[in-house]
Order: sequence, then structure tokens, then C-alpha cells
Amino acid sequence: MTKITVLRIGHRKNRDKRITTHCGLVARAFGADKIIICGEEDECVNTINKASKAWGGKFEAKYAKDFVKPLKKLKKTNKIVHLTFFGTPIQTAIKKIRKEKNILIVIGAEKVPRIVYNLADYNVAVTNQPHSEVAALAIMLDKFFSGKELNKKFTSAKKKIIPSKNGKNFKKKTYL
Amino acid sequence: MTKITVLRIGHRKNRDKRITTHCGLVARAFGADKIIICGEEDECVNTINKASKAWGGKFEAKYAKDFVKPLKKLKKTNKIVHLTFFGTPIQTAIKKIRKEKNILIVIGAEKVPRIVYNLADYNVAVTNQPHSEVAALAIMLDKFFSGKELNKKFTSAKKKIIPSKNGKNFKKKTYL
Repeated sequence: MTKITVLRIGHRKNRDKRITTHCGLVARAFGADKIIICGEEDECVNTINKASKAWGGKFEAKYAKDFVKPLKKLKKTNKIVHLTFFGTPIQTAIKKIRKEKNILIVIGAEKVPRIVYNLADYNVAVTNQPHSEVAALAIMLDKFFSGKELNKKFTSAKKKIIPSKNGKNFKKKTYL
Repeated sequence: MTKITVLRIGHRKNRDKRITTHCGLVARAFGADKIIICGEEDECVNTINKASKAWGGKFEAKYAKDFVKPLKKLKKTNKIVHLTFFGTPIQTAIKKIRKEKNILIVIGAEKVPRIVYNLADYNVAVTNQPHSEVAALAIMLDKFFSGKELNKKFTSAKKKIIPSKNGKNFKKKTYL
């Protein structure tokens, strides 16, 4: 089975706390298996793991100070997909990427060091416009799974939403 | 032609600055026409408009203190799509939404007041898992346009990326 890891590089504690947390939650919700957060050590790793515990599934968040070590290590067993607006369009690249087994998706915070571009098997753009690594990651995973991840079931969930037309219906929010 | 407006409610200056900026940039990059940011007044409105000016197109960001007024006003000429993880799955709702003319997409920050659920024509969930309004907005727009927004051209751009396999190639980054 395909294993998808996300490598978030250049995390800055104050500036990126919420964006990185969103990246972690998106990675989990859209079917990735793991996120490694590199840069300044931060509680957002715990926030993501707490959410995973409550909402189910086997997603895992980890911290690594330096990104080069995990990048080089994972390069041996993964194809590296680097999301950058300088890259080639996802709508064409995705067909080849879907055939790969294990994938490491790299998302940067600020300026991404050249080594990432060089080590990447795919430098992929989710549009060539400036927007958000959170959105780029979600679109990448959605295209990779052809939308099927939207129906993903999360095992051993303590919290679960029962969808409803009127939206918020707390009585239907089940705590298992 | 379809006109898509995004209403971002409950913006808190310190906590949401970057998330809201990402929402604005995503709205623009994925084919929406406008974002109205409600809550605490913030420079992120300018940040988004500056990006639009540099990267082209006609996207516009505006500020409104209170969200109820624009919500009620736009309700007259728009169908309201409220993105909430309590809602019904986007993968089924999208077929009907695609037939609507003008759409107002509402995205919250913290807890969304009941009035939004009540005024919404569609309470839609991009997964029933916790993740990110940035990702939910991107997926919503991508599903609405069936991925065609990824090829969108932006007129009168001052900055433009020429996509490349090796990613970052500044020589190919054209300043028109």
C-alpha cells in the first residue's frame, strides 16, 4: 500500500504555528500517514497528535530539527514530490505520481533551499500563483487519491461528526 | 457568468493574520472574484490586494466590520455555501452547487454563529474531519470548477512564473 509522508520544512515557532498545524491536520484528513515538522521545536506537533487521537486513524506527527537528514533518508525509499509554484502543473504531473509507491511530499515555509529542488523527483506546482502550502497540500492529496480520500474512515475515533443539512447539530455529534 | 465571493468571518488580527491572508490568496488563485474579510480590521486586506496587483487578474479584497450586513445583502443575489465540517459531503453537494449562478462561500475562523447555518443554502463539509478553512476553500473551488481553475490566466500580471521541471529558475521568472 502507498505510504505518504509530508515533510514540512523551515517551521518558525511564532510565525508558522497555525499554518503548520493546519498542514498537519490537512495531511491527516486527506489521507497522508505522517508529517515531519522541521525547524524550531513547537507544541504544534502535540496539537496534531492530540487531534489524531481524538478523531481516529493512525496519523502521526513528529519533530526533527534539521530537514536534510530525513529528506536524504526518505529519498532512499520514497519518491520526493516538492510542492512549489515554480514547478510543473500538478494536473499533468499527477498521472505519473499516482503510479509511485511511497511518496514524500515536501512543503516549505519561507524560501526553500536549493537542495530540495535538486533532490526532488517532482517539482510540482498547484497553480503558478502565490497562495498557500495548506491549500497546495490538500489539492495534491485530493488529486493523488482522485477525491476518494473524502470518504476515508478513521478507526478508533473518540469524536465523530454525523453530517447534517442544517450543519451544526450538536446532538448528532457523537462521542464514541 | 458565475461570480464567486468569499466571506471570511470572525477574523482576529493577531491570531488569524496569516490564515486569512492564505484564504484570500487561495480565493484568488482558485478562481473566486472577491473576498470580504469581517472582524478586526487588519492589513491583510492590503497584502492580498497588493498580491493581486502584482500577479494580475481582477480579484478584490475588502474589509467589513460586521458580517451580518454583507451576508444578508448578498443572500438576495447569491446562493450561500457555508463550509463547515458539520455539513453534508461536498462530493455529493457539488453537483447542485455547480448549477447556481452567483455564490457566496462563507468560511469561519473560530465558532460560527447559528445565523450562518440558518441563512446558508448549503452547509457543506470538505470531509467531516477537523483541518483548515484554507484547504476547505481550495477544495471547494477546485471541485466547483472541476479542476479547470488550475489553468486560469491572470490578465495584466506584473509577475509571472514560467513553470519548470527543476523548479526554481529565477531566470525564467519573468517580470513583464
